[in-house]
Amino acid sequence: MNLSDSHVPSYWSASEQEVFRQWWWRREDLRYVEGHLFLGDQNLHSLAYSVGTPCYVYNSSRIKQNILRIHSALERASLRHRIFYAIKANRNPMLLTYIRSLGLTGVDCCSPNELLFGRQVGFLEEEISYTGVSVSNDDLAILTRHSGVFINCDSLSQIRRLGHLTPGREIGIRVNPNIGLSYNAASRLQYSGHKTTKFGIYKDSFLEALQLAAEYKLNVTGIHCHSGFGFLSKELPVLEMLLNEICWFVDQLKNPKYVNLGGGLGVPFVKDDCPLDLEAWARLIANYFAPKDLEVFVEPGCYIVKDSGVLLLQVTQIERKQDKIFVYVNGGHNINLSSMFYQLPLAVVPVVLQKQQDMNSRSNWIQVSIAGNINEAIDIFAEDIYLPSLQEGDYLAFLNAGGYGSSMSSNHCMRGHFMEFLIYPKE
Amino acid sequence: MNLSDSHVPSYWSASEQEVFRQWWWRREDLRYVEGHLFLGDQNLHSLAYSVGTPCYVYNSSRIKQNILRIHSALERASLRHRIFYAIKANRNPMLLTYIRSLGLTGVDCCSPNELLFGRQVGFLEEEISYTGVSVSNDDLAILTRHSGVFINCDSLSQIRRLGHLTPGREIGIRVNPNIGLSYNAASRLQYSGHKTTKFGIYKDSFLEALQLAAEYKLNVTGIHCHSGFGFLSKELPVLEMLLNEICWFVDQLKNPKYVNLGGGLGVPFVKDDCPLDLEAWARLIANYFAPKDLEVFVEPGCYIVKDSGVLLLQVTQIERKQDKIFVYVNGGHNINLSSMFYQLPLAVVPVVLQKQQDMNSRSNWIQVSIAGNINEAIDIFAEDIYLPSLQEGDYLAFLNAGGYGSSMSSNHCMRGHFMEFLIYPKE
Repeated sequence: MNLSDSHVPSYWSASEQEVFRQWWWRREDLRYVEGHLFLGDQNLHSLAYSVGTPCYVYNSSRIKQNILRIHSALERASLRHRIFYAIKANRNPMLLTYIRSLGLTGVDCCSPNELLFGRQVGFLEEEISYTGVSVSNDDLAILTRHSGVFINCDSLSQIRRLGHLTPGREIGIRVNPNIGLSYNAASRLQYSGHKTTKFGIYKDSFLEALQLAAEYKLNVTGIHCHSGFGFLSKELPVLEMLLNEICWFVDQLKNPKYVNLGGGLGVPFVKDDCPLDLEAWARLIANYFAPKDLEVFVEPGCYIVKDSGVLLLQVTQIERKQDKIFVYVNGGHNINLSSMFYQLPLAVVPVVLQKQQDMNSRSNWIQVSIAGNINEAIDIFAEDIYLPSLQEGDYLAFLNAGGYGSSMSSNHCMRGHFMEFLIYPKE
Repeated sequence: MNLSDSHVPSYWSASEQEVFRQWWWRREDLRYVEGHLFLGDQNLHSLAYSVGTPCYVYNSSRIKQNILRIHSALERASLRHRIFYAIKANRNPMLLTYIRSLGLTGVDCCSPNELLFGRQVGFLEEEISYTGVSVSNDDLAILTRHSGVFINCDSLSQIRRLGHLTPGREIGIRVNPNIGLSYNAASRLQYSGHKTTKFGIYKDSFLEALQLAAEYKLNVTGIHCHSGFGFLSKELPVLEMLLNEICWFVDQLKNPKYVNLGGGLGVPFVKDDCPLDLEAWARLIANYFAPKDLEVFVEPGCYIVKDSGVLLLQVTQIERKQDKIFVYVNGGHNINLSSMFYQLPLAVVPVVLQKQQDMNSRSNWIQVSIAGNINEAIDIFAEDIYLPSLQEGDYLAFLNAGGYGSSMSSNHCMRGHFMEFLIYPKE
């Protein structure tokens, strides 16, 4: 499909066309066709109109492409590798079943229920990597029934308790390299660095951890590290420092088989975000771990699903309050928490671009804030963004909604209802 | 029951007793008895041990006392008044049924599902006050089937659409006095003031709103205003400014019957918080509205339920990470979001204070951070607080968990399970 500006309606003014060109997120499978926003071959207005809103729509093709792109980059870097999809990003049953059916990944789980759900969906024990925090004895009782699962211990206590239950088992150790790696260095999203976090075993306790594992005859074959969220190309120098640190941990092992680099691979949120260069990312990893002949595990969540999905909401009213114009929608932060919780930017775009005859009778592009339907002051999806003029009843698409959207949703104010659609564009 | 320090174990050291005395939250129905934390007459260790954790425990007596205290203050100020409990603070079915059974309040609802749930629990239409934001046409279709409900319109659009559906109806108008009122002036919790918010009709549009209402023959009999969250005595001067502003709106009405001041009444979160002086609060309101012979509606949520409840979690592990000691628990922010989301302080205390023989074999009070079991960096309940030394398996109580805890919970990481107990202490 042609991605040129031919899809900009010719009757638009120059300034409107200019704003349109700033819509940096356009892709083969996410673009306007004759003024209607499509995800894959799905006209999103038709869908919203027929099924109602709020609804999430996920493009299965995009998910597959995202996975294949990671495989391809790691293969080109000649790395033996496995991908474990981080189930917590989106556990929608259809989506997870689709990912299982591809047969390209395992899953990364962080709770017993995620592990059991992964099994229900059809993932085998050896296709599951488990890395929990604050693992309870009840958690361990369930975990240890699954002898083939890769378990990464993130504390001395967990090593001791797991060793007590299953001496002789193979384990990985989640380490904390004390280097944070996140989208724009957002501290809320850093799993290490910035300040001491609850995650992993730091260098100063690592030898004690190995000694403890040895006491229980646990065979430490892997190093796990997850350092952040949403990193892009500009964060790769930080990743390099981090890989360097990880090597120290790997080098302490007698019998290292794998290094698990966790997730954190990001997608652009705003126009100026430079997408993650996967080839450079894979080469960097290869520099450090190919010489050691280690298998590399990665656990992307966001990267696989986030940009595959949009959330569709309907405009309930548009109203000026003092100096601001608010566009109100029929959903709130409780069904799409991540932007507000992590203070990440959120791209909001109209599902239909009005035709010229309508445009003439309306004002031009306007600066608006997008307000949800929850009775809370923070329930604002986006502030002071530019949109073409809208009417009550129009639909809006919230992009990058495929990860950490539905999976974190709540029924706050009893406004928790939404639907989820997995679409299969003809290829 | 004696609230003196006789409940401090006599074998404690002077410094331990000093820390204990700093536990400002002690009340008749929340205190240690022989080293065990009780809520009402419920030994919380016995409960946690027998039913498991995570669990919320709510004291019905405290809820009743909180409601009666508000009534009493408003009565002493000679105000005709009604209390509407804000259902969004906690919609646990047992708790809500208990509140209904008291017959002392109506309910404040903000979504159609809350309205319908209120009806299911047994509240009559005329016992329901409805104030929504971003009210959709679907919402209105449900609302207008309940002719006896007090509806407060918070936008011109809503007035127009409601007027179209039910001309001639009585309504209230939610106004925005442009003055914020919140716990420590936290901007995340301000519904007006600070900057332009999505809520209510501002002064600059109010006459237009009245004109619009008149066009649809809507009879505007009430002014509604909700300005914030968690205000205490030190915020009362701000409340006075706010009441003064509200008078302007009331004075524009031809036939005012009630003024609804919303909720926002707070409870102390930390030792230095001075509790809200309800008598002073009521007198302030009476100064403004008694002369006008208006009925005063209030919609407290937090004030009624927040300090009635505790969340019990179990310590999964205690571990030093670099310079910090983390106490990990078997629950995460997804089941008790409010402290992290609104950045409010959270009091965490041990359920059992150890006996002397145990104390001797342990270190003294230690500075710790409380970490949840969600794989997210922000999943920290409290940082650098002092607790007596603990062991894996001990229970902790998270105070002020009766409001905006379970009602906002999610199944993030599939760690969403908890129980809720409503207890009935013998009086």
